[in-house]
Amino acid sequence: MIKFSLCPRYELAFELLGKKWTGLIIRCLLDGPKRFSDLTDIIPHISAKVLADRMKELEHQGIIIRSVYPEIPVKIEYSLTEKGRDLEKALEQVQQWAEKWIIIKQKKSE
Amino acid sequence: MIKFSLCPRYELAFELLGKKWTGLIIRCLLDGPKRFSDLTDIIPHISAKVLADRMKELEHQGIIIRSVYPEIPVKIEYSLTEKGRDLEKALEQVQQWAEKWIIIKQKKSE
Repeated sequence: MIKFSLCPRYELAFELLGKKWTGLIIRCLLDGPKRFSDLTDIIPHISAKVLADRMKELEHQGIIIRSVYPEIPVKIEYSLTEKGRDLEKALEQVQQWAEKWIIIKQKKSE
Repeated sequence: MIKFSLCPRYELAFELLGKKWTGLIIRCLLDGPKRFSDLTDIIPHISAKVLADRMKELEHQGIIIRSVYPEIPVKIEYSLTEKGRDLEKALEQVQQWAEKWIIIKQKKSE
């Protein structure tokens, strides 16, 4: 019989991080506050609908905050909370792992 | 115009890690080689079909290896490659983040 069991907190953390795009969104916001259109520009292939859903969830989880500036036109920015910024170490480790192990296949024409 | 851009290797790494269950499977195998049935026991709510698909992908990505022992009945075990084990630091950071920030909601009856 297996003695090992998963930590419930770890499971919940990976339920969040193990969602497509979450790791990329947080990586973008670690670079500083961004507008919605900035994120759709930076993250290839993400649809506005999926990004909007993911942002709502991250806001609900206390990972990001949405700031509305009363300018004309109104300016809305997303930034990381302390809880969100605290993921930097984990994402930095993923970056180092990726640089060591991920091979980018050259496109045929090159 | 936004100057920030995502590192392609980081994107590919999160395409893998950003898949449901991957982080949990790797966390289990960091504890040592496991059989398929061990993993379905440890990881709640994962179906055998989904686990089989994910294991095939992780094997294809060089993250895990499948060892077949010619016993009766045959014994099949999954374990991490060096590439897979190298994710330990990233997952350890997620564990620390989870312990600091993830709140487990007590069930009403408790």
